[in-house]
Amino acid sequence: MRIPLERKVLNENDRIAAGLRERFRERGVFCLNLISSPGSGKTSLLERTLEGFDKSRRVAVLTGDIQTDNDARRLARFGFPVRQITTGGACHLDARMVADHLGDWENFELLLIENVGNLVCPTSYDLGEDAKVVVLSVTEGEDKPLKYPGIFRRSELMIINKIDLLRHVPFRMDLARENARRINPRIEIIATSCTTGAGLGHWMNWLADRAGKKVRAAPSQEVVHALSGT
Amino acid sequence: MRIPLERKVLNENDRIAAGLRERFRERGVFCLNLISSPGSGKTSLLERTLEGFDKSRRVAVLTGDIQTDNDARRLARFGFPVRQITTGGACHLDARMVADHLGDWENFELLLIENVGNLVCPTSYDLGEDAKVVVLSVTEGEDKPLKYPGIFRRSELMIINKIDLLRHVPFRMDLARENARRINPRIEIIATSCTTGAGLGHWMNWLADRAGKKVRAAPSQEVVHALSGT
Repeated sequence: MRIPLERKVLNENDRIAAGLRERFRERGVFCLNLISSPGSGKTSLLERTLEGFDKSRRVAVLTGDIQTDNDARRLARFGFPVRQITTGGACHLDARMVADHLGDWENFELLLIENVGNLVCPTSYDLGEDAKVVVLSVTEGEDKPLKYPGIFRRSELMIINKIDLLRHVPFRMDLARENARRINPRIEIIATSCTTGAGLGHWMNWLADRAGKKVRAAPSQEVVHALSGT
Repeated sequence: MRIPLERKVLNENDRIAAGLRERFRERGVFCLNLISSPGSGKTSLLERTLEGFDKSRRVAVLTGDIQTDNDARRLARFGFPVRQITTGGACHLDARMVADHLGDWENFELLLIENVGNLVCPTSYDLGEDAKVVVLSVTEGEDKPLKYPGIFRRSELMIINKIDLLRHVPFRMDLARENARRINPRIEIIATSCTTGAGLGHWMNWLADRAGKKVRAAPSQEVVHALSGT
C-alpha cells in the first residue's frame, strides 16, 4: 500500500529535479549532492573547500539540516553565498526544497548541496545534481558500503574522511575500497583529512576535472569561468 | 498529501507496537530499542554487553540492517540467541518486522533491538520497547542533539561512545551534555568506550536498574530472574 504513494512522491520529485537539472545546464552550474551519516565531516569538508577557492569564484552552498542553521553560519564566514534548508523533521532534502531555496539564485559555476546527515533516505531523492558524492569517515567502519549499498551504488565519488584518525580506529582502508567497489565498480575514491589537509588537493582537482567535463560536454553553451579553468 | 498516509502507516505501527508491549509485559520481557547514526558503535556496545552477561541469563538480540547479516554473525558468537532483520532498503525497523522476526521467541528477560543506523527515521516507529536509547559517538560532534532533536527527546538514555578517541577529536563533553539536556532535561547520560571498557559497568548497572523498575512496577506478574537480580 505504501509503495504506490512513494512512487508518486518520487515521480513528482523527479519532475522537479529534471527542471532543476535543465536550469543548471542552461546556466552552466555544476551541482554536487553530498551525502553521509551525521558527523562524517561534510561541513568540515565544505569549509576546507570554500577556503581553497579564490573569492572571485562563483560558488554557492545549500546546506540541509532537520533543525538549526549552525552549518550555514559555519560556512558563511568564507564569503560565499550560503543558504540553510531546515527540513523541520524530514530525513532528506527533496527537489522542491532545493528549488524553493534557490529562488532566483543562479549566477553560479558551482553549487554544493550538503544533504541531511543520513546514509539512507537522501539516496532516493534526485536534486537535479550532476553527481552524488558519499562521505564515509574512518570511525564508521569499513563495512558501510555493504550495509548501506544504495548510496554507494549511486555515487560517482566516495570520500573517505578523517584519515588522521586511522591510527586510533580499527579501519582497514583496503577493505573499505574493496567493499565500495564490490557495490559500485566504477566509484572513484579519495581519502581526506580536514584536520591535516591530506587529500584535499586531490578532491579540489576532482571537482575541477568533473566540472570541466560537464562544460566540455556542452560546448555550445555560454562557458563562464568553468571550474577547470578553461 | 503525504501526511495523512504517514499517519495511517504510523497508526498501524502503533497498533502492532501496543500488541508487542502487552506481550512483553505479560512475559516479563524488558525491551530496549537502540538508535544511532551508522557506525556509532551500537554493535560493539552489544558485543561488550553480551560478553558481560552470565550465560544463564535469558537475553536475546534482534539486529536491523538494510543489507547483510554481519551484525548477527558478530553477535551470535556470545552464545545468546540473535536474529537479523534485513530491511532490504527500509531506513528503520517497524513493529511488524519485530513481530514477524520474534515469532514464538518470548522466553526472555531482556530483548535488545539494534535499529538500522539512522538518527532520524527510526525515531518515529514505536517497536513496543520499554525505552529508547540513543548512542552518539564523540567523532560525530557535540551538536547532534540540536540538529536531530527527535531521537534525543524520546530517549531515556544517551550513551556517549568512543570516549577513548576524545584526545583526537574536537568534541566537548560538557557541551554535548548541555545540548542533550536542552532538548530533553530528563535524559540520562553515560559515557563509554567499547575499546577500553570505560563506562560499561555504569551501562550494565543502568540496564539492571531500569529492568528492575519495570519488574517492581508490575509486582503481580510472574517475576522470573529479573535483571535486577531480585
